[in-house]
Amino acid sequence: MENGSVKWKVKGKQQLNSASAVTVRAVRDAIMSKVSPTDERPIIPLGHGDPSHFPSFRTTCTAEEAIVDAVRSAKFHCYSSSVGILPARRAVAEYLSKDLPYRLSPDDVYMTIGCTQAIEIMLAVLSNPGANVLLPRPGYPYYEARAAFEHLEVRHFDLLPEKGWEVDLDSVEAIADENTVAMFIVNPGNPCGCVYTYEHLEKVAKLAKKLGIMVMADEVYDHLTFGNTPFVPMGVFGTIVPVVTVGSISKRWIVPGWRIGWLVTNDPKGILRKSGIIDCIVGYLNVSADPVTFVQGALPQILEKTKEDFFSKINGVMKEAANICYDRFKEIPYIDCPYKPEGSMFVMVKINLSLLEDIDNDMDFCLKVAKEESVIILPGCAVGMSNWLRITFAIEPSSLEDGLARIKAFCERHSKMQ
Amino acid sequence: MENGSVKWKVKGKQQLNSASAVTVRAVRDAIMSKVSPTDERPIIPLGHGDPSHFPSFRTTCTAEEAIVDAVRSAKFHCYSSSVGILPARRAVAEYLSKDLPYRLSPDDVYMTIGCTQAIEIMLAVLSNPGANVLLPRPGYPYYEARAAFEHLEVRHFDLLPEKGWEVDLDSVEAIADENTVAMFIVNPGNPCGCVYTYEHLEKVAKLAKKLGIMVMADEVYDHLTFGNTPFVPMGVFGTIVPVVTVGSISKRWIVPGWRIGWLVTNDPKGILRKSGIIDCIVGYLNVSADPVTFVQGALPQILEKTKEDFFSKINGVMKEAANICYDRFKEIPYIDCPYKPEGSMFVMVKINLSLLEDIDNDMDFCLKVAKEESVIILPGCAVGMSNWLRITFAIEPSSLEDGLARIKAFCERHSKMQ
Ligand SMILES: Cc1ncc(COP(=O)(O)O)c(C=O)c1O
Ligand SMILES: Cc1ncc(COP(=O)(O)O)c(C=O)c1O
Repeated sequence: MENGSVKWKVKGKQQLNSASAVTVRAVRDAIMSKVSPTDERPIIPLGHGDPSHFPSFRTTCTAEEAIVDAVRSAKFHCYSSSVGILPARRAVAEYLSKDLPYRLSPDDVYMTIGCTQAIEIMLAVLSNPGANVLLPRPGYPYYEARAAFEHLEVRHFDLLPEKGWEVDLDSVEAIADENTVAMFIVNPGNPCGCVYTYEHLEKVAKLAKKLGIMVMADEVYDHLTFGNTPFVPMGVFGTIVPVVTVGSISKRWIVPGWRIGWLVTNDPKGILRKSGIIDCIVGYLNVSADPVTFVQGALPQILEKTKEDFFSKINGVMKEAANICYDRFKEIPYIDCPYKPEGSMFVMVKINLSLLEDIDNDMDFCLKVAKEESVIILPGCAVGMSNWLRITFAIEPSSLEDGLARIKAFCERHSKMQ
Repeated sequence: MENGSVKWKVKGKQQLNSASAVTVRAVRDAIMSKVSPTDERPIIPLGHGDPSHFPSFRTTCTAEEAIVDAVRSAKFHCYSSSVGILPARRAVAEYLSKDLPYRLSPDDVYMTIGCTQAIEIMLAVLSNPGANVLLPRPGYPYYEARAAFEHLEVRHFDLLPEKGWEVDLDSVEAIADENTVAMFIVNPGNPCGCVYTYEHLEKVAKLAKKLGIMVMADEVYDHLTFGNTPFVPMGVFGTIVPVVTVGSISKRWIVPGWRIGWLVTNDPKGILRKSGIIDCIVGYLNVSADPVTFVQGALPQILEKTKEDFFSKINGVMKEAANICYDRFKEIPYIDCPYKPEGSMFVMVKINLSLLEDIDNDMDFCLKVAKEESVIILPGCAVGMSNWLRITFAIEPSSLEDGLARIKAFCERHSKMQ
């Protein structure tokens, strides 16, 4: 004690703050705070991957009633096992096997708290001292935030806008070294809206094999496709390279608040088992929080009973929204949209800063468009590409039109040409 | 590549396995595997803190219907904010304030994935290099497992069976040093079934203040009391020492699979804020999985609408079960039960090894009683006290009688006196 007052020794771990500062959430909060309280127009949220609030994106009642049945059955009030309950794992194995040339077993499946926890697990499992992993740029910044947490070194390979945001395979080879253990892809892509062809994924698999590294495929947007390229899961190439697939029902069923996802090993050759990866996944799950048991209990009904209509309706709305976005940006000379999205909920567009006055960079653009137009956009810097913007088109189409018109007006007001 | 075959570089992080090996789950699995498949009697699970499967412990339909309403409202399909949604935080603040001399604000409350994630957060937040924390022995081994994960040094103080499992305050002083930042208590107690008096908790608070450390109180069994001592939350002493309270609805509502809990700061003097603890908690939550949004949405209805009948019925069943346990052990000379439990779901009993033949220690006792009697008990070594047993009495009373009779028969068969 000093002068009669206590000297408290308790202290928070500094590093936890810095790791989390880079998340999308933090950037979005900063931008949101700029919105003018006197603007009477509705805020247009183009920065967010969560359309669940919009009437056009209401989930199917099949899913809601599956939850109701599971709760009322009182069979799932208990703790889960750490890998997840068998009926849920079996249902995920069935669901994913439909698109694979071989059948997954329930033992290949681990239930997780959304895709988020599956990513957390893989980054923890791979974070041996000295190891590094390869991430796409632009990407989903949660990867960088969690890797920082685990002291895991990350290196970035490029996605190529002029080639439909395909992986720059040369850049992967250039950054990989003896300590590289994995490369990560996101397909369908956030933030690019790209969908990879069978041929491209096969090249990725072969390159990974050549480098002796595994592939983790984030397929949280699986089947959310509406262009010419059909969705192909990376697991198809499990015989070439060991693949871990992570996913969830958050996006396809538009229930991100339900927090149920999976981590699946596509490992017909048993390489992940031999390398100790499987034991580590189980070890991590043993000391981690589990997904809600009754949501797991509802999963078989959700995966098996949801009608095709629902999916085609949602993909139809997404397609319409993607088209609106692409067409409107064509009319805004200050912004380039090099690629028409074919999947997920996002598109990347490039700001033509040389044509704009008073706009320093992408962050400045986003802060000002929030302030002046009450439109929320995620700056490219938050996903690894400065002076680009990530636009979410998965909002009510009428609001989307409104938002894009405001962006146009904003650009015109800040035009150097005026 | 070597001889045409690929040299895979991927490797799991070894340390993840070892940390998780010490969990209750792992020990229980080992014991479960001994049960004889030819024994036709039902397995009696006395090793598990999850009575949700038993008819006497069915949760209230108020809680089930709160979930149904929240799901069907479609208002909570969205992502949560990282600290939890406001209605849930407000409801928890109200609920806990009833037992406190001051009012909590929703900003003191962080929603977590059960009490489990709240513990995870606190251990991460406190794990500065060189720091140490003080844990009770016997205790809840998840603390040790997570601390190992975070490379956080733990030291153990004793609980005193002859004093109703109170904290041995002298042992706390003896092990604390300059680098000690926090002490942890579990009240009502797992594994001891103890409930601490106001006076004892006040002494704990004053000692912590003297040492300049914070207190984390695990109150996951709050209000599950049925003896002479009423439940007093540690937060009552928030003006003496900064307190973090963690809890959930898992135990009182008997819905451990719902995965909703809280971390609450009782910090009227703002010491946790100044020390950076609050920023770290928020930083950690920013990059962690969230509890299910609709379960959060249901929480106000669950906390506010559950009738007293339900609680008194459950506490009545617990009391009956605790009495059965205590009385039966009195009749088994091979096992001592020094304290009649007043809360939680557990009691600690001591094996009198000198009276038993063929039994090496507590683990051996548990493996053999599983094999010969299909009774599952957690050995004391799993909770830090060798040659004791932790018995869960929260099972259907008729099964409990059956299980205790089998334990008695087992002891008599292995008696040296025969
Ligand atoms: C690429 C990517 N992966 C994972 C997630 C998290 O998904 P979940 O809601 O299943 O945790 C998101 C969410 O936006 C995402 O965009
Ligand atoms: C002392 C203690 N703390 C925390 C927990 C975990 O509680 P929850 O189900 O809320 O995660 C348990 C569960 O048995 C426990 O005994």
